[in-house]
Amino acid sequence: MNQHLLTHAHTIIRQSIAAVLPDEAVRRALADMDLPPRVTLVAIGKAAWRMAAAAQSILGSRITQGVVVTKYGHSEGALPGLEIIEAGHPVPDENSIRGAARALDLVSGLSREDAVLFLISGGGSALFEAPLPGASLGDIAALTRQLLACGASIAEINAVRKHLSAVKGGRFAMACAPASLTCIVLSDVLGDAPDVIASGPAAPDASTCADVQAIIRKYALTVPEHLLPLLATETPKALERVTSIVTGSVSALCEAAAGAARSLGYVPLVLTTTLDCEAREAGAMMAAIAREIRRSGSPISPPCAVIAGGETVVHLRGTGLGGRSQELALAAAKGLDGLQSVCLLALGSDGTDGPTDAAGGIVTGGFAAACRARGLSIDAALQNNDAYPLLKEMDALIMTGPTGTNVNDVCVLLIK
Amino acid sequence: MNQHLLTHAHTIIRQSIAAVLPDEAVRRALADMDLPPRVTLVAIGKAAWRMAAAAQSILGSRITQGVVVTKYGHSEGALPGLEIIEAGHPVPDENSIRGAARALDLVSGLSREDAVLFLISGGGSALFEAPLPGASLGDIAALTRQLLACGASIAEINAVRKHLSAVKGGRFAMACAPASLTCIVLSDVLGDAPDVIASGPAAPDASTCADVQAIIRKYALTVPEHLLPLLATETPKALERVTSIVTGSVSALCEAAAGAARSLGYVPLVLTTTLDCEAREAGAMMAAIAREIRRSGSPISPPCAVIAGGETVVHLRGTGLGGRSQELALAAAKGLDGLQSVCLLALGSDGTDGPTDAAGGIVTGGFAAACRARGLSIDAALQNNDAYPLLKEMDALIMTGPTGTNVNDVCVLLIK
Repeated sequence: MNQHLLTHAHTIIRQSIAAVLPDEAVRRALADMDLPPRVTLVAIGKAAWRMAAAAQSILGSRITQGVVVTKYGHSEGALPGLEIIEAGHPVPDENSIRGAARALDLVSGLSREDAVLFLISGGGSALFEAPLPGASLGDIAALTRQLLACGASIAEINAVRKHLSAVKGGRFAMACAPASLTCIVLSDVLGDAPDVIASGPAAPDASTCADVQAIIRKYALTVPEHLLPLLATETPKALERVTSIVTGSVSALCEAAAGAARSLGYVPLVLTTTLDCEAREAGAMMAAIAREIRRSGSPISPPCAVIAGGETVVHLRGTGLGGRSQELALAAAKGLDGLQSVCLLALGSDGTDGPTDAAGGIVTGGFAAACRARGLSIDAALQNNDAYPLLKEMDALIMTGPTGTNVNDVCVLLIK
Repeated sequence: MNQHLLTHAHTIIRQSIAAVLPDEAVRRALADMDLPPRVTLVAIGKAAWRMAAAAQSILGSRITQGVVVTKYGHSEGALPGLEIIEAGHPVPDENSIRGAARALDLVSGLSREDAVLFLISGGGSALFEAPLPGASLGDIAALTRQLLACGASIAEINAVRKHLSAVKGGRFAMACAPASLTCIVLSDVLGDAPDVIASGPAAPDASTCADVQAIIRKYALTVPEHLLPLLATETPKALERVTSIVTGSVSALCEAAAGAARSLGYVPLVLTTTLDCEAREAGAMMAAIAREIRRSGSPISPPCAVIAGGETVVHLRGTGLGGRSQELALAAAKGLDGLQSVCLLALGSDGTDGPTDAAGGIVTGGFAAACRARGLSIDAALQNNDAYPLLKEMDALIMTGPTGTNVNDVCVLLIK
């Protein structure tokens, strides 16, 4: 019975990841789109190469020009007719500026009949930067250091940086006008806020010059004289002829898991796509839900799949080896102890959970008893943040290898 | 809009607690029962007096004799025809033994036509004890100390203690035969396991003499010679003519919250009745579910009430004032920040959450912004386990006063 369940779990894992691979995400998005005959392609982020390759395989010669800006080592070779630039991440470098300048160059002078296809993935904020004329990368870095030193929030830091950039905060979209702009977004940000992913180069910016002035006063920042007029120029608050579709994201990952579960006969229930609590406690709560399903059929009757996606955190207390998905699964195993026909899987969509070669872990209601029988302590492993060796010993690691995508994590509780 | 939501929340609080008051729980259970004309009443636990008074008000003169064993200070006066004994809790004392002896005396010599009505509530394990002939309270206490010192689990400690008791582990039920035995249980144990609540005086015992021998070997316990034959005598593994109904429990609390929400127009969804993770992380996860409901209508569309019952834990890190339900609510407030028409309440059914005079806390999607506006830091309060002063300052405490029941906690996420 559990063998069946585990087979189903592995099918769900395979299908969920397949749905959020950059190639598949771009293919799905383009299927719904009606692009004109002349397309300029700009792809930025860690998955830029794969997204661009997928777009090219579909649109072919309709892509007349383009640039791909990705992280060092992330290009997989030449793409006909496209320029490929590798740049710095997480710290932007001169190549980040070269990439953005090349993109701005390509989109300048386009007509209303032209279209820009903009492929955005995680890391785009560092990989794609153009300081406004009068500012330099050094200016931006110096202000960022000041803000970090006085404990400013990431939202505050981004508000300031957007106002010094010619591409962030919707300004790249402005540069594309009057051409139409179509964005396909692979999101690594919980909630998929378009003005947050890659610092929102194609999204109206919610932060204002007044916000920036308030932040400068709040932290008594030292701002060089030459930056003051730049910081007093508003980012766009509305954009025309811009269409955005978030195609790969943790929501898509959860939907894919739900779809895979449904086709195997389990009724899916997505609890959340913004799970952000401590990994092991999320595991305990998923197990508490499993017990209720067994006891009363609430919140949903078996066969069912309860799904939670997001990005949990681990507060390190020990010196062991593991990752947030492995901890979640191992903690869940304690709470599932003794339940029949139940399993829980937790994995990172990038295939590398924490500093390990495993994507995550998978446990059943019999896991805890099996550990006891072999003299292995789940509590000790959790105490030392050492989930990996125990899960490995119990053959309970999920091994996918690096997947080439990153849309955060998903956890699936499967009950027959 | 939020005012409406808060009014509804307070209605749900009132009705949920009312449903699990000892009096109401006993009344509901007796309504479904068919007792013979001659009933012997035995009530044990912290709610024994209230449960006995409720039974007496319904059964009247059909109760021909009885004894009520409760904690010091928990009797509210004489009950006609019933003997009331107050005893030690959490450490049993001579009055615990007197109470159990009196109960054994009353049920001995009953016929098949007689019935024993046994009212069980939390604390019954300490308040109701009869060492087997040959053992003493001191023997049991000494063994318990040894077991605690070597880190034995509560299940292991109870297995040993049940085998030294004439009332625990189903032995009180044995003593009632051939009379029928009807138990009404107010549960303070997650999962309501009948052999765990009050150490299971009327439930078949899962622990065996072999288990006890294994525990003795495992911890190399020093067991006095005279106890060995007692520990080699099995507790009953099956019981005849025993009926048990768990009427008040965290499940009943959750069901009552669900019913109250439904009658106010919210579709209820009970996630779990055995929530046992860190309080603040449960709050974060409830908030993550709220965000998903707002985003996608999953796991359930508004208007809805998502309910989780159980007994969360707090690992103290600070020196502040608060309780687990208050921490849960305060942590949830961070994750609910900015959501419209959302509130979350968390409370302990006993009306006293942690060492405070509040039952819990109630927060809305506007709570975090209101804190910021007043310069109050939710993070700082959580960091110092100091939820009470902040919730008090924000008028967000739930104040019910002591309720007279204890069936653990419930948390309700209410979304319009």
